[in-house]
Amino acid sequence: MSFISVNPDSHFPIENLPYGVFSTADNPRHRIGIAIGDQILDLSVVKHLFDGPVLQSQQNVFDEPTLNAFMSMGRPAWSEARATLQRILSSSEPVLRDNASLRARAFVPQAQATMHLPAKIGDYTDFYSSKYHAFNVGTDIRRPNGQTRADETKPPVFGACKLFDFELEMAFFTGPATQMGEPIPIDKTEDYIFGMVIMNDWSARDIQKWEYVPLGPFLGKNLGTTISPWIVTMDALKPFLVPNTVQDPKPLPYISHEDPYNFDINLEVALNCKTSGQSPDSYGSMLELCWKGTKPIPLSNDLTRKFLQDGDEVIMTGYCEKDGYKIENLRLAQAHIWEEKVVWVDYIDESTDLQTGSGSSARTCLINVFVFK
Amino acid sequence: MSFISVNPDSHFPIENLPYGVFSTADNPRHRIGIAIGDQILDLSVVKHLFDGPVLQSQQNVFDEPTLNAFMSMGRPAWSEARATLQRILSSSEPVLRDNASLRARAFVPQAQATMHLPAKIGDYTDFYSSKYHAFNVGTDIRRPNGQTRADETKPPVFGACKLFDFELEMAFFTGPATQMGEPIPIDKTEDYIFGMVIMNDWSARDIQKWEYVPLGPFLGKNLGTTISPWIVTMDALKPFLVPNTVQDPKPLPYISHEDPYNFDINLEVALNCKTSGQSPDSYGSMLELCWKGTKPIPLSNDLTRKFLQDGDEVIMTGYCEKDGYKIENLRLAQAHIWEEKVVWVDYIDESTDLQTGSGSSARTCLINVFVFK
Repeated sequence: MSFISVNPDSHFPIENLPYGVFSTADNPRHRIGIAIGDQILDLSVVKHLFDGPVLQSQQNVFDEPTLNAFMSMGRPAWSEARATLQRILSSSEPVLRDNASLRARAFVPQAQATMHLPAKIGDYTDFYSSKYHAFNVGTDIRRPNGQTRADETKPPVFGACKLFDFELEMAFFTGPATQMGEPIPIDKTEDYIFGMVIMNDWSARDIQKWEYVPLGPFLGKNLGTTISPWIVTMDALKPFLVPNTVQDPKPLPYISHEDPYNFDINLEVALNCKTSGQSPDSYGSMLELCWKGTKPIPLSNDLTRKFLQDGDEVIMTGYCEKDGYKIENLRLAQAHIWEEKVVWVDYIDESTDLQTGSGSSARTCLINVFVFK
Repeated sequence: MSFISVNPDSHFPIENLPYGVFSTADNPRHRIGIAIGDQILDLSVVKHLFDGPVLQSQQNVFDEPTLNAFMSMGRPAWSEARATLQRILSSSEPVLRDNASLRARAFVPQAQATMHLPAKIGDYTDFYSSKYHAFNVGTDIRRPNGQTRADETKPPVFGACKLFDFELEMAFFTGPATQMGEPIPIDKTEDYIFGMVIMNDWSARDIQKWEYVPLGPFLGKNLGTTISPWIVTMDALKPFLVPNTVQDPKPLPYISHEDPYNFDINLEVALNCKTSGQSPDSYGSMLELCWKGTKPIPLSNDLTRKFLQDGDEVIMTGYCEKDGYKIENLRLAQAHIWEEKVVWVDYIDESTDLQTGSGSSARTCLINVFVFK
């Protein structure tokens, strides 16, 4: 229990404590913070409280404009930081609770903060396809232009993408850096996975369809990628471990593991739609052009979308729920916002194996890795 | 003519002046330099000499550890810097020539310098395939492990790549940054292309073959990518402009241009081979698995290679030649070095259209773009 009041519906209880990078109107400097209730604890202000054996001589990692230095310290630092944070935020610990001046400087309402990319992304590997994008944490996305060939009896044409789509994926941030070419054995991977975000791999399906043979999609996929602003740590997700899924065919030994490393995470996609008027088709159908095994996602009411329209807002949420608290994995929103009723597309209940990237549905089995250097 | 003596065979005459980032044993700080003869002019030492209208208030861009800030200033700064450099290096200009103390601090023999990645690479787009790698400028490359399936009647196996290959490509560095989603019209692209390097897109062909359907190559390509350390500017390449190639089919209007933007660049690949003993097969044959239209590259003597062996060294060189001077585009070398005789694989005479990425041979028509932010 924290001395910061946390609404029972909040996704940011003391069991979560995700990391992000934020700024405020009166202080444009990018600072590292953790989310608690509707507040952000500014770690640059309380860095002197990290007095454990690993971090006491490295408190400056919380003065950086990104999480890279902290993530590169590895699991001992991550675990110690979590223990320190849970202690100084607890209702029984006076160090922050009873220091009114420090509290006034250390907490920022989330509503007043602008979130930024939490880390400098040095490399990016997708389990299925390698690509690199302009990453953002909530910026509007512009419908891309490109070559498409809707009519195969005619030459391709240039113009705005007509089949604009989202992809709900999960991504994890890794550290510390390894030497180039140095593999990490499967039973050590846990020491290198810092935490997770949800990722929206915006996709121009008509551009992708025309370009993807023989080398795979590229321009249809590199118009932008959005990740959630708060990195939920693997420590916070541990209570939601579930038995490993049975994989058929069984993965090769170098990516097989016996220890459970599957997490029960609820994933949602919501659309704020400006207008209706599309024919009632299944949503995910265009995906089948390139992703095998994708199940269609039916819309749950009379508003429908085959593909995204200008003004649509896409909201992706991931959460775990247990013993009355929720761990929010992210909430991200973008595209030109239009204030209209919310259409819940579907709930996707998902258990994903983070080490091998396989999952029970093709929809979220793309696991993305951010590598820090 | 420069007061620095330049050997007639040198690839770094005053007409070239490529940019790089270097350090020395006695000063490990990464500094921006330009190559002249067998020397490097340290721009952090002579930054006060950039007194033109664009750069005089921005001399600190030459104090940075990368070229990003300078490249983001755009063509007016690039052209002014080139004019300043050609003036202060010329045999008729005393400002540097006659200042013995400044000269002693400003010049470093290339043989004593270590070259580094010249820029922080924020995004990377390949005209044919989008991928992102660990970039380096001359580090040894480790043979990667991965899944391959040499025998399609049996399950895939995990192990070291057996069909390790290079890809000679050209890459260009671009700036200034644009807004995400904001296209650059084809007739403005010249203002955004700073310069070129040669790129070796190391490729594990057997891993690539097993993984590339349906999403294209990824792990077979992301084991590392090497670029040449000196960025040759487009200003230096202008004398080597040749008429545009006739493209069939004609590109769509948004990537068509009338102004010549094709350059006559000689490209070479050399191998230093540890041992012989391979059967005399055509080199490029494995490429045909994925790159259409690739011509085989015969070896020119009795040493042969189907694929790279441990200890091989790959040396790629690009140069333009005119009126008795050479513009070196790069020289890069790597893999475990073995001192044995040099086997010249082939000369590839190439004219490449930088704007549309097409060329007269599939071998080098991959144009890679580095985007600065």
